[in-house]
Amino acid sequence: MRLAVIGTGLIGASVGLAAKRSGATVFGFDDDEATAELALQRGAVDQVKPTLGEALGGAELAVVAVPVGRLAAQVRTVLEASADDCTVTDVGSTKTAVCEAAAGSPRFIGGHPVCGSEARGPAHATADLFEGATWFLSPLPHSDPARYRLVHGFVGDLGAVPVAIDPGAHDRLVALTSHLPHVLANMLVNHAGATRIDGHEPLSSAGGSLRDMTRVAGANPRIWVDIFLENAEALRAALAEHRRGLEQVDSALASGDAGFLARWIGEAVRNRRGMISDAYGDPGELHRLRVHVPDRPGVLAGITQALGAERINIEDFELQHQSPERGGDLTVLVAGEREAERAAALLEAQGYGVVVAPALDE
Amino acid sequence: MRLAVIGTGLIGASVGLAAKRSGATVFGFDDDEATAELALQRGAVDQVKPTLGEALGGAELAVVAVPVGRLAAQVRTVLEASADDCTVTDVGSTKTAVCEAAAGSPRFIGGHPVCGSEARGPAHATADLFEGATWFLSPLPHSDPARYRLVHGFVGDLGAVPVAIDPGAHDRLVALTSHLPHVLANMLVNHAGATRIDGHEPLSSAGGSLRDMTRVAGANPRIWVDIFLENAEALRAALAEHRRGLEQVDSALASGDAGFLARWIGEAVRNRRGMISDAYGDPGELHRLRVHVPDRPGVLAGITQALGAERINIEDFELQHQSPERGGDLTVLVAGEREAERAAALLEAQGYGVVVAPALDE
Repeated sequence: MRLAVIGTGLIGASVGLAAKRSGATVFGFDDDEATAELALQRGAVDQVKPTLGEALGGAELAVVAVPVGRLAAQVRTVLEASADDCTVTDVGSTKTAVCEAAAGSPRFIGGHPVCGSEARGPAHATADLFEGATWFLSPLPHSDPARYRLVHGFVGDLGAVPVAIDPGAHDRLVALTSHLPHVLANMLVNHAGATRIDGHEPLSSAGGSLRDMTRVAGANPRIWVDIFLENAEALRAALAEHRRGLEQVDSALASGDAGFLARWIGEAVRNRRGMISDAYGDPGELHRLRVHVPDRPGVLAGITQALGAERINIEDFELQHQSPERGGDLTVLVAGEREAERAAALLEAQGYGVVVAPALDE
Repeated sequence: MRLAVIGTGLIGASVGLAAKRSGATVFGFDDDEATAELALQRGAVDQVKPTLGEALGGAELAVVAVPVGRLAAQVRTVLEASADDCTVTDVGSTKTAVCEAAAGSPRFIGGHPVCGSEARGPAHATADLFEGATWFLSPLPHSDPARYRLVHGFVGDLGAVPVAIDPGAHDRLVALTSHLPHVLANMLVNHAGATRIDGHEPLSSAGGSLRDMTRVAGANPRIWVDIFLENAEALRAALAEHRRGLEQVDSALASGDAGFLARWIGEAVRNRRGMISDAYGDPGELHRLRVHVPDRPGVLAGITQALGAERINIEDFELQHQSPERGGDLTVLVAGEREAERAAALLEAQGYGVVVAPALDE
């Protein structure tokens, strides 16, 4: 397979590396010469071409991996500059605009790998980036089925799981699963940051919930302004629905409606269970261990070794730092109450205090 | 020191264990006999007393650790049933109502250890629960300074960091740092759970951001309904401010105001930096490594051992599962670009693909 990668930043270069691993010959082009050169050094492309046309020459597949703000125009240009036997796809995180830009070309299949990395540039591109990731594909009514099969097989070869979706549905879906969470994370951290309460700074007193919920805050301003604007319509609809929901909760708080709140939290328990059931099989079996650990090298290795030696199957594992003096909190998810108790006993034998609880508390 | 623990669930029993470790004699009382008996078995109290009065007899300090919904009434009862030389404190997560209930008694100092555990019951109580945790204390104008010093010293002995705060300020602070995040987490997971988009279930396509932001969703309905209602006023004010902020973002999206969005995200970068600077010293130095790992026991131990052997200082560490087939994503925070590159090289030598980026992307 002869592949053209247009835009050799993190995603483009990672596509190149993964494609080369499965035997493709990769030609790269980037507006920024240094970026293209770095991708070549990294081994992500076999050759850098000085013009778009040369990179596309003889390509069976062109992957357009430029930022969302320039994506639609670049896809149009690539379709014009490439031969009829060249299939074109992209990796943008919104799909409506780019699919419209393809203007009904049977050669275009929109794509979006969900690999959630904030890194930029080819320096840290990796062939493993798409391993196990969902890769949305948007075949359109006029898309050539053979070309859809080509792209479908290609992303599968990169290690991703292709999922077909209509462009508009894709954008509504990511508005809810990604763009709204990013807006709320920014909102929460700015709300807390702008508030002083009797001299106390909310950000300095942030507990686990605020830290969890603002982890994606402040991600890539240069990328996210474009994503928000590109998907403004779907995002605004999600925001409107979010605000309607908050009004209901506000009314329940105003009237002291404990029944409403209990049902609402109960629904959240069920929904959260549904969400993580894909990841864990039977989430009702999941148990959470919490351990306070000192800030010292080797602590983590000691714990994971002890659990590994007893073949305790760790599902999730998280160390969250408080401060050098206060150390950190370690959370370990283990499937099965018995396994959790066994893990707790091992850690207690190492001198740690362990709190065990079902991960889904009802 | 002779201590009475009133309510021997997770928090009360953990107070007992930690206090016994520093030499206190602990008497316990719980309305639920089985809970009290379990605390005794766990070694969290020296004796269980059959009545509140007997537990309080001769106590220098009484810690009231009953659920928020019953807290104010219980504190009033304890103040009435205890002798003049008995100081009374509590561990409730709201402070206004309980401080009012103490009705100006100089013997009462409100308290709130921020240890964020969802577990209930004394079975998993641990003396380490408060290690490094903030423990809010609310001395009032009429509080006896000597009693404040007593409680201040006591929580310090348990390993916590006492922070003095006015009850109303406390409740506004936790409304913003804890209760609002919990509301938004429930809201997000219920919004996603109630939506179907062209047959796609948003919860099944949840990426990292939605999972991060709904981690506290569905926490303890029995506890959280009371917390939300108890702190309704401050929480509603926080919700109103949140909704005002969302309206601004909505306007920017409607008018395509890229400048507003860029400034707003830039502010989030600075605020997030401020938030984590307490935990990490110089957050600008923090680098994030991302590695895709297979779902296999021993993987985690292999990685932490390799980093530990080279004395790489791991700040945060997180493994998030996708599914048994897809494996999981490992995120490691390391201070210093050079250390991060060294860590990446070690992991690459083990055959992993590693993406490195500054943790605060600007």
